[in-house]
Amino acid sequence: MQELDYLESNRDRHIEELRAFLSIPSVSTRSEHAGDVQAAADFVVQQLRAAGLEAVEKHSTPGHPVVTGHTKPVAGAPTVLIYGHYDVQPAEPLELWKTPPFVPDLRDGKLYARGAADDKGQVFIYLKVLEAFHQVRGGCPVNVKVLIEGEEEIGSPNLVPFLKAHKKELACDVVLVSDTHMMGYDTPSITVGLRGLTSVEVTVQGASGDLHSGTYGGSVANPIQVLCEMLVACKNPRTGKILIPGFYDDVRRLSAQDRRKLAEAPHDDEKFRSATGAPALFGEKGFSTIERIGARPTFEVNGIWGGYMGEGLKTVLPSQAHAKISMRLVPDQDPQSIAKATEAFLKEIAPPHVNVTVTRERNQGDAIWVDADFPAMQVARDAVRKVFGTAPHLTLEGGSIPIVANFKKVLRRDTILLGFGLPDDRLHAPNEKFDLRMLDRGMKTVAHLLNDLATA
Amino acid sequence: MQELDYLESNRDRHIEELRAFLSIPSVSTRSEHAGDVQAAADFVVQQLRAAGLEAVEKHSTPGHPVVTGHTKPVAGAPTVLIYGHYDVQPAEPLELWKTPPFVPDLRDGKLYARGAADDKGQVFIYLKVLEAFHQVRGGCPVNVKVLIEGEEEIGSPNLVPFLKAHKKELACDVVLVSDTHMMGYDTPSITVGLRGLTSVEVTVQGASGDLHSGTYGGSVANPIQVLCEMLVACKNPRTGKILIPGFYDDVRRLSAQDRRKLAEAPHDDEKFRSATGAPALFGEKGFSTIERIGARPTFEVNGIWGGYMGEGLKTVLPSQAHAKISMRLVPDQDPQSIAKATEAFLKEIAPPHVNVTVTRERNQGDAIWVDADFPAMQVARDAVRKVFGTAPHLTLEGGSIPIVANFKKVLRRDTILLGFGLPDDRLHAPNEKFDLRMLDRGMKTVAHLLNDLATA
Repeated sequence: MQELDYLESNRDRHIEELRAFLSIPSVSTRSEHAGDVQAAADFVVQQLRAAGLEAVEKHSTPGHPVVTGHTKPVAGAPTVLIYGHYDVQPAEPLELWKTPPFVPDLRDGKLYARGAADDKGQVFIYLKVLEAFHQVRGGCPVNVKVLIEGEEEIGSPNLVPFLKAHKKELACDVVLVSDTHMMGYDTPSITVGLRGLTSVEVTVQGASGDLHSGTYGGSVANPIQVLCEMLVACKNPRTGKILIPGFYDDVRRLSAQDRRKLAEAPHDDEKFRSATGAPALFGEKGFSTIERIGARPTFEVNGIWGGYMGEGLKTVLPSQAHAKISMRLVPDQDPQSIAKATEAFLKEIAPPHVNVTVTRERNQGDAIWVDADFPAMQVARDAVRKVFGTAPHLTLEGGSIPIVANFKKVLRRDTILLGFGLPDDRLHAPNEKFDLRMLDRGMKTVAHLLNDLATA
Repeated sequence: MQELDYLESNRDRHIEELRAFLSIPSVSTRSEHAGDVQAAADFVVQQLRAAGLEAVEKHSTPGHPVVTGHTKPVAGAPTVLIYGHYDVQPAEPLELWKTPPFVPDLRDGKLYARGAADDKGQVFIYLKVLEAFHQVRGGCPVNVKVLIEGEEEIGSPNLVPFLKAHKKELACDVVLVSDTHMMGYDTPSITVGLRGLTSVEVTVQGASGDLHSGTYGGSVANPIQVLCEMLVACKNPRTGKILIPGFYDDVRRLSAQDRRKLAEAPHDDEKFRSATGAPALFGEKGFSTIERIGARPTFEVNGIWGGYMGEGLKTVLPSQAHAKISMRLVPDQDPQSIAKATEAFLKEIAPPHVNVTVTRERNQGDAIWVDADFPAMQVARDAVRKVFGTAPHLTLEGGSIPIVANFKKVLRRDTILLGFGLPDDRLHAPNEKFDLRMLDRGMKTVAHLLNDLATA
């Protein structure tokens, strides 16, 4: 394939372009970055036009824009919808970055920047493969439609309405998403499961204002202490079981065969633990690490704060305490029902000496398990084998891409989750990176896949 | 007493001077305010000199300075050591102040500023009474020594060594401290008990860096959740009993008579609750509100933080969580032993999947209960009666002034805790204030007390 030579000979220019993309701080959750999110959308628009796509458009939404476009129509060829996102997570805590998050730094063949792997670097693979087909043979061998959004990191609140409104224009045979990772550089994998997500924020209020911990300490409840009691009531400290009534009711159980298959994947608990730096692993009793991440739901406090957090001691009896909680879900848990059950439970266990407010956040999405054997998936597995030299494992990923469940619901199509990240990419954390060897292999794999789908 | 007329006719000038004192942001716990703490010490030095004191000196310490001085010696008269502090608590959260904390604002006869009541306004009472005696009769009728420090709000770490080193110069018959409050404007009181204090900071570390809550959630412990479990293990959510082994071993029990006396003081739980704004009171089962505050120890989380605390959601599995804990103590608990027991317990209950670090803070002090009937105390009770028109109640205060126990230990002298604050002064909290009617009554009471001690 001549496209592979094209990609290789344009590699330096491409990496410079990726740096420019990563330099835009398109943090979707922060209103002060709205202009940057627009700039990232404009970057995608310009790239798609340069790659020869038609009808490239930046659609306004009540939030951040959606970018669409399609390749020159090829009669009789299948249609692939490519989805990705150009927004990124906040970069804080900034002091833990070795180099600034929005000044991409190339070290040891890896590009360090917020969004390097999640998801700008992976979106970039498609931009360049499409450019290669356009430059080398004047167009793509299959019909490609692209859908690149700017709200994935805040739960894609405007994408489902967009999907429904543009159902006809987005009609396709299969969806292709690169927003996940492989098991390793030498152990390729395709993701066949994603967890869902739901989240709440809880505020506990005691006194109406902060009080002197001497003058009042002992006479009124401390909202931090009460918040801790409530969070502990949600999860058993020894078994890791979530104690919210009804939480596990709709959890799809793994069959004995599923569990055997998962256990076959190369995984070493000690190596995994060592990579996290935790002194020991901890999770739900009765399940393996791979099952805990891929096939079991979680209850995680993402942030907690209250009282005095500065230097030294302030002997205050605080009036408020806050926690942000997110829960990863598995099929067939309903995000809305779980959030409601959590809110109801937190309010039920709130003692009478505090006031508790629970806000259900908009970040929500269904979990999904994908059929591993449909025809386009087999072409993808083959493309991976060609480039990586070995067939991909099929894995369940712990993260969430809420829109994938909606591709099935609205477009009635399956999604191939062909991610090119690596497990140590530090998504959502300081020093996120993308290994440029995976960028290269990603481009090759996608070029093969689009090429082979035309004749499959 | 002509001094009372002097104080009345100089009232406006005095209030302007108090404003100047309160304008200095002498926050002892913040290194960036070290210069302001010096400026507040200089203010006291200049005031003492203007009031005719001799040998006024600002002593350097490894921390903030101590100011001393004494009145012209009066042979045969008793010696009173007056103690106070010119440092203040941090003013945060700033957004909750109606007017800026270091721009004193006079509203409805009350002066609003950080330190207004704790303790600059009360130290100011002595500065002006000494000035009055100096101006009216050329000197004080008793021997007064003053000791004003700048580290009370951080636990007076350098004052005990100073006391020991200057034991001879500070020798006295009785110590007088105004750093507490009365029950009300019409219900005067003298404090005969103070709680002690000890504090620790705890850090729980899970993974070595923040992780993606999808990719890793469920496989390693969340340090926020573990910190909550540990804090809940320290205090029974239903009984309010502190569960640290040995915590209550040295607690001096109230006699039935003590409890009857405490119950006689005018106190209304509903009025008290309403003043705090809490939906209900909560405290150690089996004790009254007055007992919970005055005669029982506490375990309070003064601050907690970890993970993402910004706008929106960040689906992070944090690597660290932190809490600042302080404990109010009663006789005969030892602050050092309690801090050690807390540290040992926290480490003992730490599960193997996290690393726990406990720092014992230097903020420490013994609790003290003062004899209510020694001669100087009777003169003080009488001075209060003269000015307030009714005899003072004797109360146990929940706060801590760690140095008071050391006056007994080092100087072998009792302390009269003659505070002129009011319960709603909001010490350590936003919108701290000092009622100028209490400033006036405080000056009159202290003038009577010093005058009457000369002939007692």
